[in-house]
Amino acid sequence: MSYYTEEVHGPHDYLDLGSFELTSGFILPEATLAYKTIGTLNDARDNAILLPHMYTGTSAFMTAYVGPGRPLDPERYFFILPAQFGDGFSSSPSNTPPPFDRGAFPPVAISDDVRAQHQLVTGHFGIEQLAMVSGWSMGGQQTLEWAVRYPDALKRAVPFAATAKNPDHTSVFCDLHMDALRSDPAFNNGFYERSTDVHVGLRRHAQAFALMGPTSAMYRGEVWRELGFASRDGFVQGFLQAYFLPMDPNNLLTQAAKWRAADVSLNAGGDMVQALGRITAAATVVAFTGDLFFPPEDISADAERIPGAKFVETGSVWGHFTMFNLREQDTAAIDQIYAEALAG
Amino acid sequence: MSYYTEEVHGPHDYLDLGSFELTSGFILPEATLAYKTIGTLNDARDNAILLPHMYTGTSAFMTAYVGPGRPLDPERYFFILPAQFGDGFSSSPSNTPPPFDRGAFPPVAISDDVRAQHQLVTGHFGIEQLAMVSGWSMGGQQTLEWAVRYPDALKRAVPFAATAKNPDHTSVFCDLHMDALRSDPAFNNGFYERSTDVHVGLRRHAQAFALMGPTSAMYRGEVWRELGFASRDGFVQGFLQAYFLPMDPNNLLTQAAKWRAADVSLNAGGDMVQALGRITAAATVVAFTGDLFFPPEDISADAERIPGAKFVETGSVWGHFTMFNLREQDTAAIDQIYAEALAG
Repeated sequence: MSYYTEEVHGPHDYLDLGSFELTSGFILPEATLAYKTIGTLNDARDNAILLPHMYTGTSAFMTAYVGPGRPLDPERYFFILPAQFGDGFSSSPSNTPPPFDRGAFPPVAISDDVRAQHQLVTGHFGIEQLAMVSGWSMGGQQTLEWAVRYPDALKRAVPFAATAKNPDHTSVFCDLHMDALRSDPAFNNGFYERSTDVHVGLRRHAQAFALMGPTSAMYRGEVWRELGFASRDGFVQGFLQAYFLPMDPNNLLTQAAKWRAADVSLNAGGDMVQALGRITAAATVVAFTGDLFFPPEDISADAERIPGAKFVETGSVWGHFTMFNLREQDTAAIDQIYAEALAG
Repeated sequence: MSYYTEEVHGPHDYLDLGSFELTSGFILPEATLAYKTIGTLNDARDNAILLPHMYTGTSAFMTAYVGPGRPLDPERYFFILPAQFGDGFSSSPSNTPPPFDRGAFPPVAISDDVRAQHQLVTGHFGIEQLAMVSGWSMGGQQTLEWAVRYPDALKRAVPFAATAKNPDHTSVFCDLHMDALRSDPAFNNGFYERSTDVHVGLRRHAQAFALMGPTSAMYRGEVWRELGFASRDGFVQGFLQAYFLPMDPNNLLTQAAKWRAADVSLNAGGDMVQALGRITAAATVVAFTGDLFFPPEDISADAERIPGAKFVETGSVWGHFTMFNLREQDTAAIDQIYAEALAG
């Protein structure tokens, strides 16, 4: 079964964006924004929460944090889960016809995702102000872009494990894992026939995430045993390779380029103090201890520049992967952060 | 000029090891141990210090810590700087004739280096006890192997940034950077014609070290400016790529496989407590703050198992690269550690 299907990721809705002008200057014809919703928008249209997703995810990912009786309660809130460009459901290399297909898909930016989502929220749903925007990693990058670009359009911003500008060290990592995909001779400049032809590149890319996603302490403690594996290499193959192998390399590259270039200061001519100073949403800025992508030091430095922001550090030996729903206690800690943010 | 020459790395001496039986069971015919010496062995033969080198290094590396008036003073001590197998001077893929040439060089272990060095120290120089063994990274792995395997043969052991067993997380890294070399189609199972044919693999390998060698804080602070670079990418290319490009991929793989498999507990049937408990040398075990290869937590856990060991944490934003002589104050801190270890 193809990975980018509703059989795998559940039903989506689709907003036709028409000819969508990207930040890069390219115009994407018949651009599409895929999304899911859970719950019901109330008459006041003030109970909507937007939950953008992380690198490699789809709209399905954040549904794991939504449930009756939990802080993200669909009986109380209306959840919009947008698919980012390049995720295989919104416009992506894998689903766009020539000349913008596959290796020729135009460069996309986080700001493009956020502008498309803003169109969905305001134009399609007629919502003036979201009760919250929140996401993990690239979902957090989108959250911060929302808070800077449309300060009045959200009441709360809760980015997890994301910074206002991609850390330089993390750009070195992006260069490495993007090159891993391209290193496979079958990649052929992005014009492979089947994504599975590029499985060596996908495995190499998985190895980079095995290195940087969890912490050294996770390996030291052999915490992969909690996931049912019997060896470190079994974990790398059975968890990381298994996760990435069904994905499309061009889709991953489109997302990774956005991640690498993320920088909300572009909204203020490169002035980060001014950009973050524009935020009026009540911000809870969350870092994961030992996160090798978005270190707590970088996130707390952002928090100091966001008016009234609350900085929270949490997490486990899973480091950046703390939000991957690998451990009940990690998920419970995140639920608690949502409960407190929404109570405020 | 070829990289593995005395023009580049200075003069060496060579010990003929004859047919040398490796831990892997292979017998390497006409095996050679290259080394340098500095200073004069005294009549009592008790002023000798052995300084094995790190991954990618040669005997030339540790000369940077030897100098008149410094703790490693050639007017007082006799320094032996052994070349590890695979460094291009001792027996290596790049200098061994068929059938053990290039991609067919047999697997070598840290214990093989240490056994060959022991032959040099005791057989060739007639030294019963070294005043100290010390090295950085793989040099530290060799130091620990010495201390466990030949407890009576050294008075002091000072490993920097090394653990008794390679951390699992670091093995994930070794898998990644070894694969980076092999990923180049020109690698051809190790039977390329010229090492420069594999420059894409060598550049990919350099990227892995750009990621893991320094810390995120080094990039955050743009500390690469201290080395004269004007951009992050300029540092990666001008420092890391420039460093690795002249090297031979098979030589690097031979060294990396030793690094990955390093485990002194093999001297005690896998019992690490027993193995480290054998150490009688006065041990100063040094960790570098933020080291992504050998985290201080792992090193201090080793130190607790070494009778009477002193654990020291030092270092800068350069993380594992703290010992690379990139900053005067880092080198001064290491000199101070040597001064204290030798005073004891």
